[in-house]
This record gives sequence, C-alpha cells and structure tokens, in this order.
Amino acid sequence: MVGLPARGKSLISGKAMRYLAWVGIPARVFNVGTYRRQDTPHPNAAFFDPANKEGEKARRAAAEAAVSDMLRWFKEKNGTVAILDATNSTKARRRWIYETCKNAGIDTLFVESVCDNEEIIMHNILEVKTTSPDYVGLDPEVAAQDFRNRIRNYEKVYETIDEDEKQYTYVKLINVSSTVIINQIKDYLSSRLVYYLQNLHIKPRSIWLSRHGESEFNLTGKIGGDSNLSPRGEAYARALPALLKQSGIPKNAKITIWTSTLKRTIQTARHLAAETGYEKLEWKALDELDSGVCDSLTYEQIAERYPEDFAARDEDKYNYRYRGGESYRDVVIRLEPIIMELERSENVIIVTHQAVLRCIYAYFLNLPQDQSPWMQVPLHTLMKLTPRAYGTEEQRYKANIPAVSTWRAKGTSAKHQEYPAGLK
Amino acid sequence: MVGLPARGKSLISGKAMRYLAWVGIPARVFNVGTYRRQDTPHPNAAFFDPANKEGEKARRAAAEAAVSDMLRWFKEKNGTVAILDATNSTKARRRWIYETCKNAGIDTLFVESVCDNEEIIMHNILEVKTTSPDYVGLDPEVAAQDFRNRIRNYEKVYETIDEDEKQYTYVKLINVSSTVIINQIKDYLSSRLVYYLQNLHIKPRSIWLSRHGESEFNLTGKIGGDSNLSPRGEAYARALPALLKQSGIPKNAKITIWTSTLKRTIQTARHLAAETGYEKLEWKALDELDSGVCDSLTYEQIAERYPEDFAARDEDKYNYRYRGGESYRDVVIRLEPIIMELERSENVIIVTHQAVLRCIYAYFLNLPQDQSPWMQVPLHTLMKLTPRAYGTEEQRYKANIPAVSTWRAKGTSAKHQEYPAGLK
Repeated sequence: MVGLPARGKSLISGKAMRYLAWVGIPARVFNVGTYRRQDTPHPNAAFFDPANKEGEKARRAAAEAAVSDMLRWFKEKNGTVAILDATNSTKARRRWIYETCKNAGIDTLFVESVCDNEEIIMHNILEVKTTSPDYVGLDPEVAAQDFRNRIRNYEKVYETIDEDEKQYTYVKLINVSSTVIINQIKDYLSSRLVYYLQNLHIKPRSIWLSRHGESEFNLTGKIGGDSNLSPRGEAYARALPALLKQSGIPKNAKITIWTSTLKRTIQTARHLAAETGYEKLEWKALDELDSGVCDSLTYEQIAERYPEDFAARDEDKYNYRYRGGESYRDVVIRLEPIIMELERSENVIIVTHQAVLRCIYAYFLNLPQDQSPWMQVPLHTLMKLTPRAYGTEEQRYKANIPAVSTWRAKGTSAKHQEYPAGLK
Repeated sequence: MVGLPARGKSLISGKAMRYLAWVGIPARVFNVGTYRRQDTPHPNAAFFDPANKEGEKARRAAAEAAVSDMLRWFKEKNGTVAILDATNSTKARRRWIYETCKNAGIDTLFVESVCDNEEIIMHNILEVKTTSPDYVGLDPEVAAQDFRNRIRNYEKVYETIDEDEKQYTYVKLINVSSTVIINQIKDYLSSRLVYYLQNLHIKPRSIWLSRHGESEFNLTGKIGGDSNLSPRGEAYARALPALLKQSGIPKNAKITIWTSTLKRTIQTARHLAAETGYEKLEWKALDELDSGVCDSLTYEQIAERYPEDFAARDEDKYNYRYRGGESYRDVVIRLEPIIMELERSENVIIVTHQAVLRCIYAYFLNLPQDQSPWMQVPLHTLMKLTPRAYGTEEQRYKANIPAVSTWRAKGTSAKHQEYPAGLK
C-alpha cells in the first residue's frame, strides 16, 4: 500500500485480504503500525516529523520487522499475497521494498490511495481518532488535532507514484476509484485483484439476504429441483415487504432486487417487486448449488444410494463435488462476478438459496471455508448486512411464519432437523 | 474512440463490437472514414491539414453524417452500444459529441488510444498502407509517406484527454494497455467493457481448439456424462502432440494447455502435457453444456421422452435451456472469464467439448447466435486460430483417426449422422 494517513489504506487492505481468502488464495496483511506500536504505543505527531531522527529510526525498524516477517511468511507458510499496510510514501522506501521482494523472488504490486476530497479525509480522521489504538484514552478532539499534524508531517516528504516509477506494476486509486491508473499489470491474479479494487466504493449502504420462502421440495425434504413455494412460503413472500421495512431502509434509498432464475426465488420476490416498484434482476449465477445425480433426492435417499459420497461430503463439504454437480468451491467461482457487482452497487436485496447465501455471507463476514457450508440459515429470515470500516454488521429479522428446517448436522441424514438451541 | 491515426482505434472498435455481440449486446461501429470516402475516396495528406478549410468542412460533414446515423440507429434499431470510430482529436469535437449524445439521452464513454512506441506505430502504418481503401492502387512507399504526413497534420491540433475533461467517463489505453487510466466509470456495462479493453494485447499468438478424443459415451450416442476415452479417442490423445507440431508452433513459443474438469478432456491432453512439459490448467468453466435431465441420454431417447423440449431446442437452440441444465446463452456467460483470460494470454491450446468449443469459436470468428450452435466441429480435428488486425485466421488439421460423428442436423435424432459433403 502507498498513501498518506487517512486515505483508507487499511480498509482497502482488509477488503482485499477478505476477497482473496474467499476465492481461496492465502493472503495476509502486515500492518507496520502494529509493529511500531510494540515500542511506541502512543506516539504524538512529533514522532512522525521527518526531522525527528529517533522517530525515523523507530519507524524504519518497524518497517523492517514487518517486511522480514512478511518474507518469512512467504517462505515458511507458502503465502501467495502479502499486503504491506503502511504509508510507503517515498520513492526510496518503495525502491527498497521492490528490491527486497525481487531478491526474494516476490512480485510487487503497489496500490496507492490518493485522496484530495476533504469530506472523505475528514470522515477517515474521525474514524481513526475514535478507533486507533494510538489514541486510546485520549480526548477525541485532541486526538483529531494530533492526527491532522501527523498527516502534515507525512505530507512534507510524500512522493506520489509517478513517471520515474514506470517500471513498477502499480495501481493508483484516486478519490475512491473515481479515477484509476493501472500500470504494467502482467499476471492473472493482479488483473483480478485490480479489477476488484477498481470496483470498490465507500458510500453507506446495506445488503439484505434472504432464502426463498419454504418450497414444495422443502416440505418433503428433497434437495435441488425447481418447485413452487408451499402455502407457508407464499405467506413469507407476502410478508417480505413489511419485513424489509422493519429492518430499516434509509430514506429515499433505491433498492435493487436480485433473484436466481429458479421459480422459488422469483415467487418469493414477486410481491416485494410489485409493492415497491424496485428494479428486479434474475441471475443464473444465483441458482442453487447443482447437486447433480442427487438432485430431487432426500438426504436419506442420498445416504442410502450414495453412502460413500454422503460420507465424503461430510468429511470436506466445501470441496465435495456432487457427481455431475457442483461443490461449494465451484459456487464461489461462479459467484465472483456477483461479488464484483455487489461491490459496485449500493442497496441490494438478494433472494437466493441456502448454499449460495452461505457463500455470499462468508465473503462479507470472512467465514472460513470449513465453516461456511455448515452455517445455519433458517427459512423465513431476512439478514441485513451493513459494511463498516472494520467489518460487516449483521442483523437478522424473523418473519413469524413457521417453516421446516433444512439444516442438516454433520453425520446425520434427518429430513427436518431442529436447529441447535440458542439459534435465534 | 479518440486518438491519432495508426493508434489501433479500428482494431479496438472491431474487437469491442465482437465481444459485445458475443455477450448478446447489440453493438455497431460507425466509422467516420467510411462516410468521408463517399465524397473524398482518395484524399492526400493535405486534405487533413487543419489550415485546409475545404478539407475541414468535408471532414466535419462526414462526422455529422456518422453521428446522425448513429443516433438514428439508437432510436430506430434499439441499439445499446455504438462505437464512433474516428480520431475525435480535439476537446471541441469531444464536447460536441458529448452534448449531442446527452441531448439524445445517450451516455458517452471516451476510449483514447495513446501510443508513443515507434515500433507499434510503424507496424500500424505498414498495415494501413497495404489495406486502407484510401490508398488503393498507390505505390506502398508513397502511401506510407503520405500517411505519415496525414498523422503529422492531425498532431498539429491533437489534444489528449486531460484534467479539463474530468467530468467525462473515459479510459485511456497507453501503449496497448501497458498503462490504463480509467475515469468516472459508473455502470456495469462500462465496467465490463473497460475490463475487457484493459486486457487486450497485440502480441502475435495462436489459439488452438480441440474437442476431447472420442469417448465411450460418443460411441453409444449418449450426451453429457463423464466417461473415459474410447480406444480411438486414446489414439487421438497420443497423436495430439504431433498434430500440434504439424500445425506450426512459433520458435520458442510457450504454450499453455487448458482443459475442462471432465475426464475425457484431461485424458486427451495427458500425453501432450507429458511430452512437452507445457503448463496445464483445468477450468470448470470449460465443462460441457449441462444437459440437465437429458444427461446420459441419446438424442433418440430425448426425442422420445421429451418431444416438446426436443422441438423447442431445434427451434431456438441458442436460447433453449435443458430442464435443470444450461443453454448456449448460459455457457457464454460462464465462458466470459475464459475469454478475458484468453485475451490476456499468448499461445493457448484448449481441449474442451463440442458446445463450449462452438461458443469460443463464435467469439473469435464473430459467428451469429443462430448459427454457432449448429456449427460442425468433428472429433479428432485440431483448429488453429490466429488473430490478425482485421479478423481471425483459421486452419484445421485432421488426425487420421476415425471417430463417430456427433453432429446432428436440425429436425433429426440420428445417433451418428454423417457430416454434409464438402466438410473438410
């Protein structure tokens, strides 16, 4: 990362790491501030003055410690993408990083966040003064003033990436991607990552997730298929507009409705679309995980007819691919364009299926691959996700309409299993 | 489009149109030169001198005629993306285009191709002097000299897109996307299109396409499944390295092998990978069109069990979606990342399946949607595609190993139908 303080570097680092983890690429953030805090937990602005020799020495030592840990991580843990979250604000510093990585056989991609929009900077400063461990226990106004002085100290020596650094692979995100400059991208992974970064925005918004209402197949415990809603599922479809309202819609918010191409999600969103006039989109990529030869069977039938497959799926549910069908890993791959479009979009309500919802949820909540396929997503429940600077907030709203449970614990084949106690 | 002559504008226009057509978006190129040639078929460089009032008048008239046809196309033919292929090299001209489109309710995306790499420019000049209708019948050396003078005349007034035009949505491709500047992209389509453009390169290369060798399912006329190669299919797999060599491999070329995740393509590429040491990648997106409930049936059985579906598929094969399966349209959507990666890549040999191969072929050869699903792709045949400035060259190499035919003419359900006479 490259950029002055309060330019969203940590936010971008965190999102990039979450995205990479989600597509299965081992990634880790190395935050130089964390290393610096080991020796200097509460520095004031003077510590960052380029004329302060001792401060500079301490900051350089922190950078070296972070880079050295990073190289060790690449070597010992087979890391793929390390994100060095720091200002790296001079050409000399970037050359040092570039050379050090090159000598270790590691490619460098500089991601510079440039921002001259006062509103965004002020918003970030407010964020920092209340959340940074550097300012714990300090009067927020004093913290904000000190942080502004810190930024000024960085500005004294800051050099943006320019013509002299043409030989580097880099991307400059200017005012949260309203302008993007991309230089010398060579490989597939960088190209995907840069495309992801150029889609990011920081406008406040929420994303709502719902499964379809209870379907005829749910009643009989069959998986897959393309059945209609049950009467209770239809009641959920009718209740959805009020449930969405209850969850809190920002004033004048424009919401877009996304469904899969299967009848049960389209039927579930039908009344919501009719009552609100919201724009509606059907995505094939939101269709349920394809269960191949097991489509339209119950778990009991699968356990009986394909006992080995059933056991293999329990063993590694994320990677298990149904014969002639898909794995969770496959679903994540086809959901990637959905995630890209979600990042570009503002308010969206997605009505989709259990496995697909788990995958989308895992992206936003950073759920590991061995947990996401077992996550409990009851029917007739609306989830509201609101991205914040350091994570995603989640709220759940239950419609008061009974439905069968479609959750199955590891090692069982129950048709309608109760959710464990404690689940809302 | 924006840029001096010989900066690849027409090449980019043509590729963008082909890409858009392939993903189903009605697009058309309006080339101002074509309009200008109606009155001035063979202008010399002096015609383009900004001091030449008559020349300027004629060129302005051509631009106006093109824009007026373009607006009519939007209105009357429901066009989605029009590409105005011209130099549009001054701010005044761009403002006029922007305002004219805005008044008609049309968004503008300026795509500027900037190039100061002498080698690329010379290559483009050579291309023009031999192919441009402006220079038909002229001595190539005289044509090249005149064209250089024409460029000089444009340079006198050329204004690159800069800070003054920040309010426009634009992308600048600098030296064939070694640097890309993206500004104010707002909608999904622009974002996809810009991602496509930033992946383009012009290095010479070829793409080889092959179906898997004859499979056990092919022998019995069954579709889908995940069967092994037949003995003749295995013979094709063994013959593939020599067949590839016979097709002509550029010296020291690095070739990458792509297969689907199904056994028959992996087995087909096995010997090629082992003998050459080429890197191998398996893509789920290259798996055969999913035939849903019809998987593992013969065409006869499908015609018998699902007569209405069989007829519907013949009626509109591109859009017909197998029950619980996919249509050609669905396959194109999941192949989009493959096309993006193909554009980024150099030499690639793809071993895949009939329907998938048809879709990839349709992209490169600009085959319309009503034709591509009926295209004949015999087994045991290697196709070599070589992109050129104005289209894609195609060669076919047949291995001398018999195989069943899997082609089916409209309205028939023959298990092994002969290809029509005349097919190589």
